[in-house]
Amino acid sequence: MNQKRDLIPEPAVRRLPWYLAYVHLLRERNVEYVSSTQIAREIKVDASQIAKDLSLIDIKGKTRIGYEVPLLEHKLEEFLGFRRGHRAVLVGAGSLGRALMQDSGLMQYGLEIVAAFDVDPRLIGSERSGIPIYDVGRLDELCGPLDAAIGIVTVPVEHAQATADALIVAGVKAIWNFTPYRISVPEDVVVTNTSIYAHLAVMYNRMS
Amino acid sequence: MNQKRDLIPEPAVRRLPWYLAYVHLLRERNVEYVSSTQIAREIKVDASQIAKDLSLIDIKGKTRIGYEVPLLEHKLEEFLGFRRGHRAVLVGAGSLGRALMQDSGLMQYGLEIVAAFDVDPRLIGSERSGIPIYDVGRLDELCGPLDAAIGIVTVPVEHAQATADALIVAGVKAIWNFTPYRISVPEDVVVTNTSIYAHLAVMYNRMS
Repeated sequence: MNQKRDLIPEPAVRRLPWYLAYVHLLRERNVEYVSSTQIAREIKVDASQIAKDLSLIDIKGKTRIGYEVPLLEHKLEEFLGFRRGHRAVLVGAGSLGRALMQDSGLMQYGLEIVAAFDVDPRLIGSERSGIPIYDVGRLDELCGPLDAAIGIVTVPVEHAQATADALIVAGVKAIWNFTPYRISVPEDVVVTNTSIYAHLAVMYNRMS
Repeated sequence: MNQKRDLIPEPAVRRLPWYLAYVHLLRERNVEYVSSTQIAREIKVDASQIAKDLSLIDIKGKTRIGYEVPLLEHKLEEFLGFRRGHRAVLVGAGSLGRALMQDSGLMQYGLEIVAAFDVDPRLIGSERSGIPIYDVGRLDELCGPLDAAIGIVTVPVEHAQATADALIVAGVKAIWNFTPYRISVPEDVVVTNTSIYAHLAVMYNRMS
């Protein structure tokens, strides 16, 4: 399965959550079967592309009937990793960091923030949404015992690289970077950039 | 200027916030000049690409000296729209919605959430982070007077399309969609999709 995963191109992986969102709706409406043509109409992706994407993860529809909705939902969630608990630590319990700590949606998508770290003495020792906040100096000591493979970076931009470096030394395998800074990491570490402010720039630009 | 903006390809617009993040650091360190080669080394984008991107927005460096740091920062912020107040309403004051309402970072990047809307009677009439929460039925009545051109969609996925439709009827020109649902809009409306959960899927996939 792992080897199979490596072969799936990122654009396909990015489309799968769109299919899942629609299939989830159908399941709630007790729809039993859906065809790639129906999904295509709703999602504005070509039907043959959808069938191809789904076949990449071993999901095949039945001729003239289509895909079984509950099974399709289950397989998509399974493949996307939303059904497994991925443990993460968060560095930078400021405004955006605390926002993520209180977002229960992340848990639904398989991400559990088990601890947060900060430099602010007013935050250290407290907890938010049940998540303890530790001194960032304890990252190396605590990351291993917490069994966290993901590090979420929500520090001010000037500390982004140093924070990522510290997380990697502490043993995380993936960095979820919310700053607009282009972090450098060793080859075996995954970086996912979610710069919501960069999205704002694109939106403003297209509005004008 | 407006016409010029239209000519700038989206990948370039997406790179500009990376340059800004680095230039902001340099300005804080009182660095006066920076060359595209230096930016390139830090950001891992080709130096000629950087020079090209910056020239697209009329920023030219001086030979052998480079770009004036404070001026470069100012021009990037200006072009990216981070220095203007863009008024937005948010629909769906659940976990993610409230997280965005308390994120002061958005304001720094020129986005002001002036009101939120929800269906939950326990939320309606209250406020969070100083932002009032209204009944979603009042969207059409209030959007115009609030002078909001942007609608932020943080509702459950099954209400994403209906919410976008209501926002467009109420007069917004851009939808910032945080759900994984592919919403359809008329041609003159801008949609920006920020599905943080889809980013999670890509990260999980690359980790395994």
